[in-house]
Amino acid sequence: MRIFDIIDRKKNGNTLTDEEIRFFVQSVVDGTASNEQIGAMLMAIVLRGMDEWETEVLTMAMAESGDRIDLSSIDGIKVDKHSTGGVGDKTTLILVPLVASLGIPVAKFSGRGLGLTGGTIDKLASIPDMHTNLSEDQFISQIQQIGCAIATTGKNLDPCDKKLYAIRDVTATVDCIPLIASSIMSKKIASGSDAVVLDVKCGRGAFMKDLKGAKKLAELCVKIGKKAGLRMSAVISDMNEPLGNAVGNSLEVCEALDLLRGKGQKDLKTLTMCLASHMVLLAGKAENTKDAEQMLQASLDDGRALRKFREMIRHQGAKDITEDPDLLPKARFRGVVTSEHDGYVSGLDAARIGHAANVLGAGRLKKEDSIDYSAGVYLYKKAGDYVKKGDELLCLYSKSKDAIMDAEDDIRKAYTFSDTKPETGNIILEEKF
Amino acid sequence: MRIFDIIDRKKNGNTLTDEEIRFFVQSVVDGTASNEQIGAMLMAIVLRGMDEWETEVLTMAMAESGDRIDLSSIDGIKVDKHSTGGVGDKTTLILVPLVASLGIPVAKFSGRGLGLTGGTIDKLASIPDMHTNLSEDQFISQIQQIGCAIATTGKNLDPCDKKLYAIRDVTATVDCIPLIASSIMSKKIASGSDAVVLDVKCGRGAFMKDLKGAKKLAELCVKIGKKAGLRMSAVISDMNEPLGNAVGNSLEVCEALDLLRGKGQKDLKTLTMCLASHMVLLAGKAENTKDAEQMLQASLDDGRALRKFREMIRHQGAKDITEDPDLLPKARFRGVVTSEHDGYVSGLDAARIGHAANVLGAGRLKKEDSIDYSAGVYLYKKAGDYVKKGDELLCLYSKSKDAIMDAEDDIRKAYTFSDTKPETGNIILEEKF
Repeated sequence: MRIFDIIDRKKNGNTLTDEEIRFFVQSVVDGTASNEQIGAMLMAIVLRGMDEWETEVLTMAMAESGDRIDLSSIDGIKVDKHSTGGVGDKTTLILVPLVASLGIPVAKFSGRGLGLTGGTIDKLASIPDMHTNLSEDQFISQIQQIGCAIATTGKNLDPCDKKLYAIRDVTATVDCIPLIASSIMSKKIASGSDAVVLDVKCGRGAFMKDLKGAKKLAELCVKIGKKAGLRMSAVISDMNEPLGNAVGNSLEVCEALDLLRGKGQKDLKTLTMCLASHMVLLAGKAENTKDAEQMLQASLDDGRALRKFREMIRHQGAKDITEDPDLLPKARFRGVVTSEHDGYVSGLDAARIGHAANVLGAGRLKKEDSIDYSAGVYLYKKAGDYVKKGDELLCLYSKSKDAIMDAEDDIRKAYTFSDTKPETGNIILEEKF
Repeated sequence: MRIFDIIDRKKNGNTLTDEEIRFFVQSVVDGTASNEQIGAMLMAIVLRGMDEWETEVLTMAMAESGDRIDLSSIDGIKVDKHSTGGVGDKTTLILVPLVASLGIPVAKFSGRGLGLTGGTIDKLASIPDMHTNLSEDQFISQIQQIGCAIATTGKNLDPCDKKLYAIRDVTATVDCIPLIASSIMSKKIASGSDAVVLDVKCGRGAFMKDLKGAKKLAELCVKIGKKAGLRMSAVISDMNEPLGNAVGNSLEVCEALDLLRGKGQKDLKTLTMCLASHMVLLAGKAENTKDAEQMLQASLDDGRALRKFREMIRHQGAKDITEDPDLLPKARFRGVVTSEHDGYVSGLDAARIGHAANVLGAGRLKKEDSIDYSAGVYLYKKAGDYVKKGDELLCLYSKSKDAIMDAEDDIRKAYTFSDTKPETGNIILEEKF
């Protein structure tokens, strides 16, 4: 078998065989497929497509391309959650302790972010002294003791995805449903949980711009996961506006703490409760959504969720920011942006806000870039709010005064206004069980 | 401008701009486009296509990507010929001295072959002491003195094509008309001749398997050449059977000598005369095809063409094989293959014959491979010939007895037989002026 012939067959629109897909994955991992061959193959997949069966085979081959995590020594149904990525998404920081506080083990492997703003691990790393890189033993032992952990791992999980992702990123082959689904699900399968809730983002701040594509991706991932023996469900959520008010690492940790205290923005609360109740249902701890939500609300109300968060970060070496939020890094400079219009905010472009946060220093575009944990944007006004000229719209945070000046000009364009109150849609667009 | 965005636009089926195409070519040459990006871009071009205008721009950008040869110090209209490549094609060896014998300067840059059998330079290199690598000065001075030369050059001609071709070769992106046309024509434009005759091969031994594709390629090349200010014409010729009887470097030199002496296989003679008369017409040395053919036939008849060949090879340092053909390398082993059938030869698969010649040692698959100049196949019977069981079909030549055994089993499959005399088509399928 030759990689050349596999590329040629996909180029000509053929359905690849099991052997061909596995040979491709193996050649990517062992380096016998050259980068130009991988680039050509990915473009052929984007333009010719892959059917459901091919995508399943690709996913399993990728999941098996490196180490797999064995969580079987942890009692109970381990539930994981995955988001396709959006601006201001700090739900993982809340969900993990909230669900674990109900006695459901949550083993959350996460990555550093490559994109406009940091990933979950970057957000956690903004907490002083927090260890985010645990050995597999440390990780498992922590979940056995306190029920949850969020960490990266030194394990060689899904090396095929790492290589393919790096190449997709520079060859304009990211936005392809079979490639997105196999990338997500192969990592989830290799990560060892029993159940996965997917949060598929949809809108101008997400990969999937329209609901049709988001539904297709969600359905495909659910099917693949179930075929691999996982309990699966998926939520499609709106990502036209940023989620919540905070965008940027330590700012988002603060907002997560607010939510764990029962406060916080409605869209963030609604989505978090929805995802959490899916996790509870998949774990078999509740009969229905209503019961699940009541259990979760009780944990927020009596402080169990917040205590679980504190227990988790202290177990990972961090200072107790729940007692003293001032321990979180603070930006040296801040700049308030005020409205130049009277009227209702009719829209708030998540992509532009993410871009501004990046300019302020909240994200990295290359692996080597460093992050300013204190940098970001805090939104005072979102779609549906009425503002008068001179009202504060948002605040920019950075260690660089110049970056604030740079971001300010651009960020005004994120807002659109109207004279009449706009209809603001639901954050949850669809749920798939 | 970013290479990423150019790939993305072609992926989405857009027509690229002049700036985008030139930026792509420049990025390929200066190495800022990574191999994975080039592979993805080539596949996007194959699957989304390039229109005539884009192909013209790509061709010119490639032609300008390196050195260009200046032949203006040579008087007269310099005529070049290019073949898209076939099995047993030794026409260049005959055409160059034949056309030059009529006082038309022929400056033929050629390459070593990467394929089943050697290229023109490999065929010439089988002549003892022949220099095939001339400096630009030597090359031009030889044409000024004797009217023709065939050589490689140390010049950095069309480096973009070299890089793209190497990547196309391993990514299944060779068979794409805009990429083939730009590859051919950019080199011809950089090579400095005033007129070009193309020989587009069509059939199972060629890139283009059907006449429709071959016509499209020929028309596109002619248009691009004319836009670039060249005099152009094209011939589409049949490449289902090998051309002539000899396949392999020194065997093909011998057959070329036969033709220069007025002997030789009909198909080879017909095609050579056709291409040569196109060259004479483009050079403005004859009014019509009939006159051109008469002039050429006279040169063959009175020995001028053969004397020009001798002059050329002696000028390039070679021993005079026209006087003593035994100076050419001879294979150590030969193996005659006889027929197992009674009947007419109905077909003779050029691709299989080429493959057998390769097994015998006549070609290289990697740049580093060495060639056995004496190796190859000599055909006694071709389509339309009647054979009886036991009649000799062909002879295999090699320095390796094992290679002859290996080739023998496979080469029988090249022949098909029938009880009735098959219609054998014309070697010339179409001519484009």
